[in-house]
Amino acid sequence: MYQCNLERMKDKIKTFSKYGDAGHGGITRYSLSQEAIMARDEFRRRMEKIGAIIEMDDVANVYATLPGSDIDAKRISMGSHADSVKNGGNYDGILGVISAMEVLETVVENNIPHRHPLTAMIWTNEEGSLFPPAMMSSGIVCYNYLPEEIRKNFKYEDMMASQSVLEHEITFGEALKKSGYMGKKENRISPENTMCVFETHIEQGPILEDTGNDIGVVDCVLGMFNYRIKFYGQTTHAGTFPMEKRKDALFAAAQAICYLHEKIDALNIPGLVYTTGEIVCHPCVHTCVPDFVDFSIDARYENSEQLKKVEEVVQSCANKEWAGCRCEVKLAWNRDTVYWDKRLVEYVKKSAEELKIKHQFIHSGAGHDAQFISYMVPTTMIFVQSRGGLSHCEDEYSTPEHCTSGATVMLNAVMKADQDFE
Amino acid sequence: MYQCNLERMKDKIKTFSKYGDAGHGGITRYSLSQEAIMARDEFRRRMEKIGAIIEMDDVANVYATLPGSDIDAKRISMGSHADSVKNGGNYDGILGVISAMEVLETVVENNIPHRHPLTAMIWTNEEGSLFPPAMMSSGIVCYNYLPEEIRKNFKYEDMMASQSVLEHEITFGEALKKSGYMGKKENRISPENTMCVFETHIEQGPILEDTGNDIGVVDCVLGMFNYRIKFYGQTTHAGTFPMEKRKDALFAAAQAICYLHEKIDALNIPGLVYTTGEIVCHPCVHTCVPDFVDFSIDARYENSEQLKKVEEVVQSCANKEWAGCRCEVKLAWNRDTVYWDKRLVEYVKKSAEELKIKHQFIHSGAGHDAQFISYMVPTTMIFVQSRGGLSHCEDEYSTPEHCTSGATVMLNAVMKADQDFE
Repeated sequence: MYQCNLERMKDKIKTFSKYGDAGHGGITRYSLSQEAIMARDEFRRRMEKIGAIIEMDDVANVYATLPGSDIDAKRISMGSHADSVKNGGNYDGILGVISAMEVLETVVENNIPHRHPLTAMIWTNEEGSLFPPAMMSSGIVCYNYLPEEIRKNFKYEDMMASQSVLEHEITFGEALKKSGYMGKKENRISPENTMCVFETHIEQGPILEDTGNDIGVVDCVLGMFNYRIKFYGQTTHAGTFPMEKRKDALFAAAQAICYLHEKIDALNIPGLVYTTGEIVCHPCVHTCVPDFVDFSIDARYENSEQLKKVEEVVQSCANKEWAGCRCEVKLAWNRDTVYWDKRLVEYVKKSAEELKIKHQFIHSGAGHDAQFISYMVPTTMIFVQSRGGLSHCEDEYSTPEHCTSGATVMLNAVMKADQDFE
Repeated sequence: MYQCNLERMKDKIKTFSKYGDAGHGGITRYSLSQEAIMARDEFRRRMEKIGAIIEMDDVANVYATLPGSDIDAKRISMGSHADSVKNGGNYDGILGVISAMEVLETVVENNIPHRHPLTAMIWTNEEGSLFPPAMMSSGIVCYNYLPEEIRKNFKYEDMMASQSVLEHEITFGEALKKSGYMGKKENRISPENTMCVFETHIEQGPILEDTGNDIGVVDCVLGMFNYRIKFYGQTTHAGTFPMEKRKDALFAAAQAICYLHEKIDALNIPGLVYTTGEIVCHPCVHTCVPDFVDFSIDARYENSEQLKKVEEVVQSCANKEWAGCRCEVKLAWNRDTVYWDKRLVEYVKKSAEELKIKHQFIHSGAGHDAQFISYMVPTTMIFVQSRGGLSHCEDEYSTPEHCTSGATVMLNAVMKADQDFE
């Protein structure tokens, strides 16, 4: 069995946490921001140092490759994203990049023989925090392999024109050009150049901690949907307009959020998660009745029939009266449950067993670039325990030991794939 | 009786509606913005044209004065503000400026004799949309005359340091310096230079329209309070964190908004208005459980004992459990009901009667600069009918005939004050 290096992992975690440090233990590192470029520069420096060949594709995905002994063999790729949500943590995404780097560094340091080229990579704009949607560059790169329903959200021209959510800012296409990391389309990951893909990620939930396991052998990404629920009222002055004539869009939205909780909870689906995470209010002034409120609802579950029932509750909002306001319910996007490649899952499980690292099967509730890649080449994921299950926040934390276990499991699974997988 | 000019009023309304035109029939004209400067330039041009003397004070209030026949007499001042809320209408504030201009123009055109100097003025930053708080410059100018409770919100240094609510923007003090309208402190309106003040304003409510009256003889500004209600939860990933462990600050706030409506409505206070107009959510991302939500509640009523009961409901939020979140309730500001000068109110009423303009007594639910001025010199207000009662929105509208009636009533009331008031 091969072993990754705890001290080297610690050093990388510490170093990358500086790029976008938001001053409270976490980071804000929007895709293609100055901070994200600094993280890419660091990746590039360290990978060049061990002799890896650096390539960029046309959406600024970065690939660092160690050649294998078989000159015709396809790559085994590993990686994740380097961008974060606003005030996110130091592990979501970047741990998968750091782990891939660590695998390459360990291979070089120990002269581990391998037939296939080994590639560590950074995916651009997984979070979609600045330029929606999430998982943008894997959506673009895997476009031809995706189901029509998903594909329509990732049209190249639409993605290039994606506007920054911060006012007065630029499009994704413009940010790409400015980044200095825009390479060639022919450098994209593809079934022609890549045999299989591994992504290591923090769990972002409390299951591994609660069961006392270090590593999750991920078997699928849960199906999900995301809706926007919009309320149209009438704005007017807070001090002068009688209550009985008002059409208050925020009161409407508040009632709808309470209604959704009541009705969805009544379905009694164990393990279901749903979230109203984003709210927009107009004009959002303390002396005005709001005339427009729009909030998101995101729900995730493995079984699609059960998830359908939740969707029906969400859709039922459109047929109701909410504080005199008109209500619109719009599907933003959805996806079916995606299962990983069975053989790759088995390599991960076997590696953890042989390494005597405590592990279990687990579903992924979060979306990851890996799920789009899995439509194109065989793919799987490895989860690392998250403290308190917290993620997308500055309290996000995984111990260096757990992180190193994740990298070590990936290294050994990659080596099994290098030998066995065709 | 004297009569203002309908066509000249129309022309002014049309002209000022250009400065900050937001493309949907209304304006966004933040205080000290380029658009607000253009409106001041227009005021200045027109007032200089009729021979008025222009002065500015140290917070960019602008005064245009026609000398009177009595060289020792104090001024009779009229005016309102030229700034708007975001996507506001073409009448709130600016109609009081236009009406004051129209009074001066009519006096000059018709050579109407007057003992006292007559001043038309623009107050800076009444809305406080960009630089909170509202009614900032009247708060500064009237500071020494205000009750301690109000005064503490208008400390000069604090006001100068007031940060723009748009990110990366400047302080009020810096914007003042840049505006080109910063004059001398000794030019401020004061009891030494001013005998009394009139402010004409749109009603911003539907009462005059519902009763078929053109003009409101305003007797008071309603007492009010404004609170912020804050919820502190825990952010985490929307897809991975079990429902039963969540502390969702937006769900907490939604429950609290519904609770406030239920409990306040149960008090059954006829004519009470209350509004939850502003909401802030963090991190406000569709894939994150919100860890912080903060909303405003504003309530207004003449009788302070009744208003106290509403305040108790608001304060009771702090003692409750809201979706696992901690709740803080903080008073932002409040005021008692302010009654206008009885003699000035009588001049307004008598003028409307003699002009045979349909009128009634009315309270002001909205705050106005006039209410701070009234602590310093005798003050009153005149309301003009608002179509549909709509205000703080682009649908805000008053007919040119109603606007001209308002100016005509003010002109005649000013002339009565010029003769009688000491």
